[in-house]
Amino acid sequence: MRFVSEQRFDDGVLERGFTLGEIPGILWTPGPASAPAPLILLGHPGGLHRMYPRLVARARHSAAEGYAAATIELPGSGDRPRSAAAEEARADLRRAVEAGEPVGDDIIDRLVLPLVDEAVPEWRAALDALLALPEIGGPVGYAGGVIAIGTRLAVVEPRLSAAVLFAGSFVPRRMFDEARQVTIPLLVLLQWDDEGNDRQRALDLFDAFGAEEKTLHANMGGHTGVPQFEADAGNRFFARHLT
Amino acid sequence: MRFVSEQRFDDGVLERGFTLGEIPGILWTPGPASAPAPLILLGHPGGLHRMYPRLVARARHSAAEGYAAATIELPGSGDRPRSAAAEEARADLRRAVEAGEPVGDDIIDRLVLPLVDEAVPEWRAALDALLALPEIGGPVGYAGGVIAIGTRLAVVEPRLSAAVLFAGSFVPRRMFDEARQVTIPLLVLLQWDDEGNDRQRALDLFDAFGAEEKTLHANMGGHTGVPQFEADAGNRFFARHLT
Repeated sequence: MRFVSEQRFDDGVLERGFTLGEIPGILWTPGPASAPAPLILLGHPGGLHRMYPRLVARARHSAAEGYAAATIELPGSGDRPRSAAAEEARADLRRAVEAGEPVGDDIIDRLVLPLVDEAVPEWRAALDALLALPEIGGPVGYAGGVIAIGTRLAVVEPRLSAAVLFAGSFVPRRMFDEARQVTIPLLVLLQWDDEGNDRQRALDLFDAFGAEEKTLHANMGGHTGVPQFEADAGNRFFARHLT
Repeated sequence: MRFVSEQRFDDGVLERGFTLGEIPGILWTPGPASAPAPLILLGHPGGLHRMYPRLVARARHSAAEGYAAATIELPGSGDRPRSAAAEEARADLRRAVEAGEPVGDDIIDRLVLPLVDEAVPEWRAALDALLALPEIGGPVGYAGGVIAIGTRLAVVEPRLSAAVLFAGSFVPRRMFDEARQVTIPLLVLLQWDDEGNDRQRALDLFDAFGAEEKTLHANMGGHTGVPQFEADAGNRFFARHLT
């Protein structure tokens, strides 16, 4: 892990760009660093530059409660090399959506399964590097999309204590079996009228999660319309579980 | 409205039993009464004595944030006179549940529609009396079951500014049309594995509400297992809307 840029905001939050091998990422740490901070991994749909305004807002909101936050670019997004198979699946997805056709399981599988297989080990490697920093302690939470990545991470990564998952992406059918193996506390955010998302499938996935404490928050509005008060709810959820 | 009993708790909350005509009720007001307090009407499934431990806990939790809270007995519950038709519908409901049969729309209609018709004017009369007290100001919220009563009240009572509704009771099909007329902000609490409640019908009702701001919180566990943190969520919801 190599830090490549640094800036401090007027709320005292320190933002540092880093690279982990070829993978770019960003780390935010709260201002007056006394004890090592618990860490929230910020999930997103890919494209750090495009997502930056929302990510930095979420990170600073968490930092105000004492959490460090970090994110990395997804495979095949931003400046990272594209895979021909993923690009083809993405084009098929776009065609289906534009034609108003249902997005078939075949497209979802081709788009999401390789992404999950590739991204999750990268998130775990980032976690190794982040937890080696003296300013970051445990415990660790995950917050955001892609819900399939968050689900796999919750199953395979024992250092993850709780997760806020955005029900805003396509979930391969076979991920439902993995969802049943998730036992950490979950807060699932669902945009009720999300045009690009199948509501029933999101509810089925929530039902499938094996966690004893799982909560669903559904709100009105489209995919990017998650109300600001859910950021507060996320902080309170982590305050209960990242201790 | 006539006060018939009074006790003060060690958190300063004053509890007063009252009668409004033949209807018994309870009013809780926060300790150091400076300005007139906003009011939360506490809905419940009937049986003030049986429900008292949960009601007083909810009332004191709200009073800690400066809210007054009040509740009245439902028609045909507690010590109030029974109606033969309601008792018959209740017996039919019990038979269907014990036989593991689906509860038909006919039973739900016979049980709930007359209750709503009778209870809502009583809640409004209680509101008249409560708002006439100098220690209570507006605005007014409703929190609890019966969701059909809360729905009707939200449609017909212009002094109601926001409602937290427990999706824990049977809702007649015709109430869905009323739900579409509800425009005040709503927080709907759903117990995901509520044995006595049809989850899909609860989700359909949430979908039907016409409010621009409506949020669903679904949690694990049975009918009475609403987690304690939802009481905090209710207070924060009212803090946003009862101002």
